[in-house]
Amino acid sequence: MHLRAINPNTTSSMTAAIGRAALAAASAGTTVTAVNPEMGPASIESHYDEALAVPGLLAEIARGEADAVDAYVLACFGDPGLDAAREVASGPVVGIAEAAMHLATLLGRHFSIVTTLPRTIGRAEELAERYGFWGACSGIHAVDIPVLDLELPGSDARRQTADECRRALRTDGSDVIVLGCAGMADFCAEVSAELGVPVIDGVAAATRLAESLVALGLSTSRRGEYARPPLKEYRGALAEFSLSPAAW
Amino acid sequence: MHLRAINPNTTSSMTAAIGRAALAAASAGTTVTAVNPEMGPASIESHYDEALAVPGLLAEIARGEADAVDAYVLACFGDPGLDAAREVASGPVVGIAEAAMHLATLLGRHFSIVTTLPRTIGRAEELAERYGFWGACSGIHAVDIPVLDLELPGSDARRQTADECRRALRTDGSDVIVLGCAGMADFCAEVSAELGVPVIDGVAAATRLAESLVALGLSTSRRGEYARPPLKEYRGALAEFSLSPAAW
Amino acid sequence: MHLRAINPNTTSSMTAAIGRAALAAASAGTTVTAVNPEMGPASIESHYDEALAVPGLLAEIARGEADAVDAYVLACFGDPGLDAAREVASGPVVGIAEAAMHLATLLGRHFSIVTTLPRTIGRAEELAERYGFWGACSGIHAVDIPVLDLELPGSDARRQTADECRRALRTDGSDVIVLGCAGMADFCAEVSAELGVPVIDGVAAATRLAESLVALGLSTSRRGEYARPPLKEYRGALAEFSLSPAAW
Amino acid sequence: MHLRAINPNTTSSMTAAIGRAALAAASAGTTVTAVNPEMGPASIESHYDEALAVPGLLAEIARGEADAVDAYVLACFGDPGLDAAREVASGPVVGIAEAAMHLATLLGRHFSIVTTLPRTIGRAEELAERYGFWGACSGIHAVDIPVLDLELPGSDARRQTADECRRALRTDGSDVIVLGCAGMADFCAEVSAELGVPVIDGVAAATRLAESLVALGLSTSRRGEYARPPLKEYRGALAEFSLSPAAW
Amino acid sequence: MHLRAINPNTTSSMTAAIGRAALAAASAGTTVTAVNPEMGPASIESHYDEALAVPGLLAEIARGEADAVDAYVLACFGDPGLDAAREVASGPVVGIAEAAMHLATLLGRHFSIVTTLPRTIGRAEELAERYGFWGACSGIHAVDIPVLDLELPGSDARRQTADECRRALRTDGSDVIVLGCAGMADFCAEVSAELGVPVIDGVAAATRLAESLVALGLSTSRRGEYARPPLKEYRGALAEFSLSPAAW
Amino acid sequence: MHLRAINPNTTSSMTAAIGRAALAAASAGTTVTAVNPEMGPASIESHYDEALAVPGLLAEIARGEADAVDAYVLACFGDPGLDAAREVASGPVVGIAEAAMHLATLLGRHFSIVTTLPRTIGRAEELAERYGFWGACSGIHAVDIPVLDLELPGSDARRQTADECRRALRTDGSDVIVLGCAGMADFCAEVSAELGVPVIDGVAAATRLAESLVALGLSTSRRGEYARPPLKEYRGALAEFSLSPAAW
Repeated sequence: MHLRAINPNTTSSMTAAIGRAALAAASAGTTVTAVNPEMGPASIESHYDEALAVPGLLAEIARGEADAVDAYVLACFGDPGLDAAREVASGPVVGIAEAAMHLATLLGRHFSIVTTLPRTIGRAEELAERYGFWGACSGIHAVDIPVLDLELPGSDARRQTADECRRALRTDGSDVIVLGCAGMADFCAEVSAELGVPVIDGVAAATRLAESLVALGLSTSRRGEYARPPLKEYRGALAEFSLSPAAW
Repeated sequence: MHLRAINPNTTSSMTAAIGRAALAAASAGTTVTAVNPEMGPASIESHYDEALAVPGLLAEIARGEADAVDAYVLACFGDPGLDAAREVASGPVVGIAEAAMHLATLLGRHFSIVTTLPRTIGRAEELAERYGFWGACSGIHAVDIPVLDLELPGSDARRQTADECRRALRTDGSDVIVLGCAGMADFCAEVSAELGVPVIDGVAAATRLAESLVALGLSTSRRGEYARPPLKEYRGALAEFSLSPAAW
Repeated sequence: MHLRAINPNTTSSMTAAIGRAALAAASAGTTVTAVNPEMGPASIESHYDEALAVPGLLAEIARGEADAVDAYVLACFGDPGLDAAREVASGPVVGIAEAAMHLATLLGRHFSIVTTLPRTIGRAEELAERYGFWGACSGIHAVDIPVLDLELPGSDARRQTADECRRALRTDGSDVIVLGCAGMADFCAEVSAELGVPVIDGVAAATRLAESLVALGLSTSRRGEYARPPLKEYRGALAEFSLSPAAW
Repeated sequence: MHLRAINPNTTSSMTAAIGRAALAAASAGTTVTAVNPEMGPASIESHYDEALAVPGLLAEIARGEADAVDAYVLACFGDPGLDAAREVASGPVVGIAEAAMHLATLLGRHFSIVTTLPRTIGRAEELAERYGFWGACSGIHAVDIPVLDLELPGSDARRQTADECRRALRTDGSDVIVLGCAGMADFCAEVSAELGVPVIDGVAAATRLAESLVALGLSTSRRGEYARPPLKEYRGALAEFSLSPAAW
Repeated sequence: MHLRAINPNTTSSMTAAIGRAALAAASAGTTVTAVNPEMGPASIESHYDEALAVPGLLAEIARGEADAVDAYVLACFGDPGLDAAREVASGPVVGIAEAAMHLATLLGRHFSIVTTLPRTIGRAEELAERYGFWGACSGIHAVDIPVLDLELPGSDARRQTADECRRALRTDGSDVIVLGCAGMADFCAEVSAELGVPVIDGVAAATRLAESLVALGLSTSRRGEYARPPLKEYRGALAEFSLSPAAW
Repeated sequence: MHLRAINPNTTSSMTAAIGRAALAAASAGTTVTAVNPEMGPASIESHYDEALAVPGLLAEIARGEADAVDAYVLACFGDPGLDAAREVASGPVVGIAEAAMHLATLLGRHFSIVTTLPRTIGRAEELAERYGFWGACSGIHAVDIPVLDLELPGSDARRQTADECRRALRTDGSDVIVLGCAGMADFCAEVSAELGVPVIDGVAAATRLAESLVALGLSTSRRGEYARPPLKEYRGALAEFSLSPAAW
């Protein structure tokens, strides 16, 4: 099985970290490749960034189809472009926000999300509602650290994240922590050990869910909404996105 | 007041029709301009189309800022890129789906949406839930006509739309019709007269709402989620989207 | 276009202030008249007051019909008698609570309501739920000032309102403020300037929404629930409310 | 214990029927009186009727207080004026719509409401949502018979009601029927026997709930929203409603 | 009328207290018997306890049927086995959690629940959602006292409960208190007197509701979900639970 | 990794089929054992059956702990005893209803459930609501075949199930089918091939989810609600359930 993790921003060090997290979570026989687009933002910290990360992400799906990839992990907690990716990928596509929330609800009644910048809280709330997990989500909290600063040498981002998780558990009365950024994947084990509760990294969660779907022979339904998009002309800088049936 | 209607697809005949609808709805003193992006899909009929319409749409917002536009109407019923547009536009931004649903709830307890292709029903449902109008929306129906065929000479799209609206009222027990595509703007008055219920075209609705916000001195809150996005590098085909403070 | 703002209490100084706020919000060509009933409570601060304000309000609708008014604004944040008014008015009727909440959701993800007496919080909550905006409403707060004391000379109601708005933004993590009383219309601009977020006065909001509906040729649906009420005998002190078809 | 059933319309024959239903439902030791206002509509079939029934209803509460009544049943399925009545009555006040829905959810997972005129369906839906029973309510159906025609000699309203109930059970997959009009109280036993499912008349339900609250020493909370309304001047035809502390 | 209160744990002193509370709440002519199972846990403080209390509880229903009991009260705030009991009891079955919440919503807009152990909060939340009262429930609080310690001589459980109720009212802005354990029945009157708000004991509430249903000739619908369970073989320690039609 | 599938009824042929389905779904290195209780009902077709299946199921968890099992699948679509099992199992516990619904929402916007007996529809609805998937669930349908008849030689249950699935897709406008009974596991591949949409068997889904949780080092949170239950005396036929710390 060939699983591809797509980091939708253009920062290759983050892509490498995402690849490591996915590989660590994958089953023995699974091939994991991690990629990032050539176009788009260096990190995703606003609706604007998120919207402009999607074309590059969809280009990576097209490349993945050419590579006969079996399933995709979208490694940004805003789950950008998820519906569009499902229309054009042959295999299943799993976002890390949805994956983390799905697993969280199997481990306790309520989870808290701890994310990076406060301005992204709204999008996390929107996703929790969209996926049906708003009742299970007791709170969304931000450490107020820019995404790319999470991996700065000498950063105490891990400490701040752990502290914010502890506050979230107490304030929200929750059972489980969901880490709200792909860049926090490295913190997961340590924070869980320190707090004594399950802490979920979406990259690992999505990796296992995508693998599970492939193993069960399941992929996106082609009945109705997620059928292949109608062919049509795309103009200008996005002309390459005109779909050709060969892609499927 | 200068209001700009952005048709997020690249079909100029549809842009012209949207411009006419917006102008007809606007107050006497308002200048209305209608534009469409140079890049992206010729029509929006899938999540893929919608995602790829957003960069062009955001480029039009940037152009609008340079033109000192006061407010924007996003003239596609999927309200694509609405959150991102709000972050970067100085004035208010109103989507035609949200606008139509807002006005519908002032005129009756329940509305039905009548749209083009069945595959877009899911997105309309998602928006109704996101905006808080799922309880007010009794049903979403499709005439199964591609967007660009709505304006084909000799098409009986208007007739089919009226018939579907009549069925929707009966099936759903609703009071009001919302037309689910900017390309249906021309049908609005006639269908309303025929059915004897309010029929709402989102382009007209959004035009009036955007005007109202400007007149009241209101624009998107800059507190938190919709503050200006952080500056950062954008790569590749989207390099032009790197934000420069001059834009604001 | 002739727009009528109905202050449902009997205090004429408040009617005058409401008229000023509506006029300031209206378009150039719009005639605005502001009235209040001859019967009913001097202010609306309880369910009892609200229920007993409705007959006078409906009498004003009847008078407005005789005056060929095009649309009505109901200028009390409890939106009293809104459904009944819609049944008997020819043109659209807009309540200031609904209007303010509608516009608020176009400007940010979450709004907070700041109102007068704590005992009215329950009604505001009920309306937010009824209109579909409970998810968007992060909190409802009260300054604990009786309605008619808002305009007392020397009152520091404006200061207390601004302070409560600031607390609400912080506590609720909201983007936008909705002022929860027609008597606060005068505070709107100043509080907004001070806090740097959109602050919405329902009288202004309802004025623009009512105007917009008229401009678009839209009024309450007569299909089903909001059809003209069946004629019947009314007895006693309310005998004048027996509907005669001439009223329509 | 003295229980008072208030028929909020002015039709005395319906008041008598309501009194009989309440008496039949009450415990042995309970005194039941049934009254109707002197002012207001002959029947309640619109929002307009409902709004104008409330002043008379509140006058009956005041009279009840003078008579030292222990609890009140509001015998109209729209539960008109319920919040206002609770503010001014010393004892508990129970509406027949809420009462019927409360008991229905103790007897099965889903109930259907069968009411008189189709135009009242919206109000029943609003109440089911307000009370938390929208998930339990599978459908609301109307026999399309005016309220006062229910008791016409020779009417086949009972037959039509039973037929509509049978259709509702089949269409909705529900377990229990709620009759949506005080005027249907007489049909309850017979329809239940015929259909073999619980059929609930709100008058009987509210009678037992009101009795239960009194027996348990419970009445409306005076903390906050339902505290006694502030005293103030009422003008014109409603001047008599100025509250005097002696009333409490 | 013969009403049976079933304490689902095996502690007979608690059964006696429940019997006293039910008797005090019942009407003059009602016979009240209180029982507890011979098998199962001494108290119910976990999902594990609750699950294992159900067989004994169902055995008591079978015994009750043999005794021709008219209705049942299930006297544990988790409402364990309620659906199963409804399938096999001829008369109505009322849980104390549902009963308390039903009555609470007749007395104010919001109630707070005060229960024993923090670990039971999740179950109370689940029930409030299941019954439709999650919107009305403003908070669930625990005094952190094990169930059987509530009645220890010299315990200050009553004081701690009253204190927690006071905190709940203030924190939640609620109108009414629901006591979240059958073992708190004795505290009800005193806490209510002290706090000046309605305080509801579920045993008393369920007693009156069960009586009301019997008086109105109502019992669980046999249409569909709650029809008698299909006969089948039960093995091992639970062989006695094989249903024989004679039981009905 | 040792995974145990617990069939909560006592029918060993069904246990064997469940074991086969779990094994087929599991990864290469995973040991799968399938068991059923010695006590309880031969099949689960009512709330009564479900309640009485739980003690045997919990006894199997205790046995599994002695066998150092890593994770458990509860193989009945009512997810009986799930919360209790989570309290006492060291590893994660996954129900087949929750598992199937979780995976379904990754493959389309809406799923339909097709189950055995109509009387179980209510429980499936309750679970969909509890898990947050009620918005994604478009309908629940029953083939009206008793559980143990699914595997009768010569039965056309597979055909009837496929037909009902086809009807469900058309009626509900859904994308994905969830099979609502462990006894339907064998039908999954064939029905999916025939209908051309994803069809999900909960046994396979739960097997992969349980494996995933173990692989990621995740298990039920011990913070609060799902901490180990307090030790206490259990009486009578259930005395063996008194928990001893050695079990953990």
